[in-house]
Amino acid sequence: MEPVPAAPPAQPTHTPSEAAVLEFLGLVGYSGLGSFGMLAADAQRAPDLRSRLVLAHMAAGELAELDYVEEVARVRGADFEAMLADYRDLLEDFGLRAVPRDWWERLVRTYVGYNMLQDLLRELGEGLPAELRDAIAANLGRSGHDEFVAAELLPVLERETQLASRLALWGRRVVGDGLSLVQRLFRDHPPLAELATGEGDAEARVAALTGRLQQEHARRLGRLGLNA
Amino acid sequence: MEPVPAAPPAQPTHTPSEAAVLEFLGLVGYSGLGSFGMLAADAQRAPDLRSRLVLAHMAAGELAELDYVEEVARVRGADFEAMLADYRDLLEDFGLRAVPRDWWERLVRTYVGYNMLQDLLRELGEGLPAELRDAIAANLGRSGHDEFVAAELLPVLERETQLASRLALWGRRVVGDGLSLVQRLFRDHPPLAELATGEGDAEARVAALTGRLQQEHARRLGRLGLNA
Repeated sequence: MEPVPAAPPAQPTHTPSEAAVLEFLGLVGYSGLGSFGMLAADAQRAPDLRSRLVLAHMAAGELAELDYVEEVARVRGADFEAMLADYRDLLEDFGLRAVPRDWWERLVRTYVGYNMLQDLLRELGEGLPAELRDAIAANLGRSGHDEFVAAELLPVLERETQLASRLALWGRRVVGDGLSLVQRLFRDHPPLAELATGEGDAEARVAALTGRLQQEHARRLGRLGLNA
Repeated sequence: MEPVPAAPPAQPTHTPSEAAVLEFLGLVGYSGLGSFGMLAADAQRAPDLRSRLVLAHMAAGELAELDYVEEVARVRGADFEAMLADYRDLLEDFGLRAVPRDWWERLVRTYVGYNMLQDLLRELGEGLPAELRDAIAANLGRSGHDEFVAAELLPVLERETQLASRLALWGRRVVGDGLSLVQRLFRDHPPLAELATGEGDAEARVAALTGRLQQEHARRLGRLGLNA
């Protein structure tokens, strides 16, 4: 009988600094506020009441996560608003670049951008000190946004091949914005790299993390039948 | 010793029909969704992070009220989405007429329009059957939006008299939109008039209610030092 291969180390190989933890909390906080705005704007433009209700509730869910990390930051004696402000220019910018021309492009923009941001936060959450890691993982839920978009888009894309190829192109543009945002995040906030798990130095770990984000993105587009 | 004058009757003098109750629930539901959109859009345009956080949380609070009336409607076997849809055109329209040119006009538009809608819902809630009336009153909270705007605007208006007169004019325009919306609400949804409390026929009770809305509006503008 073959020996069971050892699982890759899920734990960080080093203990992150307090500075890295605070950077993470600020990033989660501002991401929550930015995602609230993005999902609320999508809700406002939704073509039917049901979608509008679903997206509005997802937006409100982002604030619940923000409130949770605000409390964690408060307990650590940090200035939460200042921590958020540090991320404002960076994340604001992401929202402005790719301007959707219709509801479908809007839906795909959020599908790609919001879900990649969620993946990034989950990845970095893995690198937190053990106790905080579990608390954060328990409180940063999955919004169900990817399931919602898949249910909305799949039947439409099956019928409309022209729309499908337009949205595949659009998805590539949005993911380009997303990946360069991730690069800037690590460049402008070096302590975040301490939270990238795995082997090697910071650069190698960030590169591996970025690769996993791309894989997840490709899987997510593939789910819609689109090529990443 | 003078006799204490009798308090005016707070109770409805008649029992409203189930149709009136359902109209009310639909109106509260769509108002919640519309107010979510209005407050979330204000949050997105807020000039500072603190205001953005406060307004985003108020927006989310509207959804909690919406969820509450959805549950009440579900228990009564009503189709909540259809009930909301009945109010869509009317309330959508309100949001589109007066387009604010800056943050202050935006703040005043919501101060006038949102708070008048809240007053209307409270007034109509008084006309509900007793048990439902108390449950609704307990779950339709005050958002604190009026206190927030007063705290934001008062110091600015004291310094800038030109802005004050521009916003007073703007407030009159917005309240004109608000009052004609109220008239259309009662015209397009006659059962709502059953919930207007007080003496006399439906027309007289609606007129009295509208007068109270105008008084509240004048009081609210007066609080900012502006003439209604």
